[in-house]
Amino acid sequence: MSQLFRSACQFSTRLSTKNFLRPLIVSNAFSTSPRDIQNITVYGSGLMGAGIVQVAAQNGFKVTMVDIEESFLENGINIIKTSLKRQFKDDANKQKEAIESTLSNIKTSTDPSKSAENADLIVEAIIENIQKKQDLFTKLDSVAPQSAIFTSNTSSLPIIEIAKITKRGDKFAGLHFFNPVPRMKLVEVIKTENTSDETYESLIEVAKKMQKTPVTCKDTPGFIVNRLLVPYLLEAIRLYERGDATFKDIDTAMKLGAGMPMGPFELSDFVGLDTLKSICDGWRDSNKVDTNLVASIKVLDDLVKEGKRGLVDELLGVLIRTKQPKGTIGIIVNPSMDSFTPGTINAILEIAEPPEPSELELYSRISSL
Amino acid sequence: MSQLFRSACQFSTRLSTKNFLRPLIVSNAFSTSPRDIQNITVYGSGLMGAGIVQVAAQNGFKVTMVDIEESFLENGINIIKTSLKRQFKDDANKQKEAIESTLSNIKTSTDPSKSAENADLIVEAIIENIQKKQDLFTKLDSVAPQSAIFTSNTSSLPIIEIAKITKRGDKFAGLHFFNPVPRMKLVEVIKTENTSDETYESLIEVAKKMQKTPVTCKDTPGFIVNRLLVPYLLEAIRLYERGDATFKDIDTAMKLGAGMPMGPFELSDFVGLDTLKSICDGWRDSNKVDTNLVASIKVLDDLVKEGKRGLVDELLGVLIRTKQPKGTIGIIVNPSMDSFTPGTINAILEIAEPPEPSELELYSRISSL
Repeated sequence: MSQLFRSACQFSTRLSTKNFLRPLIVSNAFSTSPRDIQNITVYGSGLMGAGIVQVAAQNGFKVTMVDIEESFLENGINIIKTSLKRQFKDDANKQKEAIESTLSNIKTSTDPSKSAENADLIVEAIIENIQKKQDLFTKLDSVAPQSAIFTSNTSSLPIIEIAKITKRGDKFAGLHFFNPVPRMKLVEVIKTENTSDETYESLIEVAKKMQKTPVTCKDTPGFIVNRLLVPYLLEAIRLYERGDATFKDIDTAMKLGAGMPMGPFELSDFVGLDTLKSICDGWRDSNKVDTNLVASIKVLDDLVKEGKRGLVDELLGVLIRTKQPKGTIGIIVNPSMDSFTPGTINAILEIAEPPEPSELELYSRISSL
Repeated sequence: MSQLFRSACQFSTRLSTKNFLRPLIVSNAFSTSPRDIQNITVYGSGLMGAGIVQVAAQNGFKVTMVDIEESFLENGINIIKTSLKRQFKDDANKQKEAIESTLSNIKTSTDPSKSAENADLIVEAIIENIQKKQDLFTKLDSVAPQSAIFTSNTSSLPIIEIAKITKRGDKFAGLHFFNPVPRMKLVEVIKTENTSDETYESLIEVAKKMQKTPVTCKDTPGFIVNRLLVPYLLEAIRLYERGDATFKDIDTAMKLGAGMPMGPFELSDFVGLDTLKSICDGWRDSNKVDTNLVASIKVLDDLVKEGKRGLVDELLGVLIRTKQPKGTIGIIVNPSMDSFTPGTINAILEIAEPPEPSELELYSRISSL
């Protein structure tokens, strides 16, 4: 069925690219022109979810933010308000206007089924647990409009494994944002083998309307950014483990010799060694990534076993990791410490989304891992 | 012999770290305090050699620049003048002063043996050919003062293989600068298993006096920066080869999602696919790097076989690679092309060392590969 649908779409693509005369009104099912997306429902009101809601609402979409408890939704709205306040901190009028107009595009709900009824697009940004995601999408598949596109913001789970429990594999894709969403320009659009061209093109359009830069990737472990960053971080740990260089020198070398905004150990700390190990183990078990690339690393395993979540953290005492609510990772930086170069501090400030003026609460560029 | 010497040095280190009273005058052979380096002889007057000569002379060292032909030396002096002119382009007086004072610290010579006679430190920056380097150091070992420290700026050859043909393994190390030397702050100081602590500490001091930031690495393939960058670049090519994403999207993703100053394909172009393949092959043959990490890549091998030295280059026509004299790699960029983001252009401009106002001639951060 979905294959048939896909073939029809592909046929239509060929027609339109050859500028054949098109009927004035075409059924969505037989057109590859991007669907007109107006209503977006986002599941999850944590940092990622709230960030996605914000950029969608700011750019004119009607957004419903859904979570299981009212208090989570209130927290999500506060994240959005804080972010907008910061974004327009130099102009009180613009700030007021931005908050008003953005919030006027946002509804909140604790009713997942009802919230899906008018959705043109669903973005799931809940916890990285495949069972929970499958449960959610099973429910949504029966209540959302047949034409609605489903997407997951997962960074670690195969999209196809979530899509397969629905009857709309052709309308299912990955839409992977980066933290903090309002500042990071990138969106990875993940096509599974079943994702239709129409779905794909609609998502590219949506990303652009959100002022993001979309890139396209197949449904493979880590997609683009994490697929290249994680092995690089693991190699850095191996270099350190072999005793070839200190981790401080490795960080310095990659910043001054390769222009990286931060060293691999600073970045590993942001990701969290526990998360890094879990990705490494997961990819090794998946048999989809060269096992040598993700071979276990004793020093990493030992540090995680000891409950240490960072090297820079543990050994230099520069970063104090704090566990945020809802599973995100936050880091408090003391900028007076001299272990960071000004460049690093700037790179950190650039991605910082401090919820409290008294501390810098930082989220990794890949904290959505 | 060198082992004995080393043990004596180590003993002395232990003494000094425990703050034992030290004699006022100690023989250099039995002290770990850095040797007083004043006279530096640099072999090679290409971009790297001239850059090293410049920063040494600018920071008060007496430098002899040696090459096999007068015309090469003239070219080296011109590189230095051009660099200093650019460095002080906003102040005609300072410019004149900098050129005069720097050049007053530089002598040139085509006589390799005579140039070594008063050297406290020798820096070799000739072609990446082990036989030529060994021949040079064999000659220098017999004419340079016994106390002189020998270093190679190689990025691809094992230091120990060059050091072993001399009788001063304890006074032999790697001193790896990055291109363009006047702008890149990093120096990798490479300790072999025979390098003495005194030699090592002297080189750290020299690097600091040159206003550089030294990091320390064992004598392993690629040292720190190239050891981590090269596998990352190879993984990016594999991601592209598998068809998971386009190379343009991979570049975009790593810049916008991971804050890299340029994408892995832009960087591969700078290094040159031919150079990248040669490193990959060399490391695989060395048995010192996990062979899976440097397994041959068909698309890379094919491109090199076809004489193509870049992907961005060949497929987008953005970069036109030019072969510079003396084996360095230059790239002419047309900034009006829209394939580069402003961030990339800035990153390129930052490392650019344009010899002609009409074009940007660029040298890779790792072009010394």
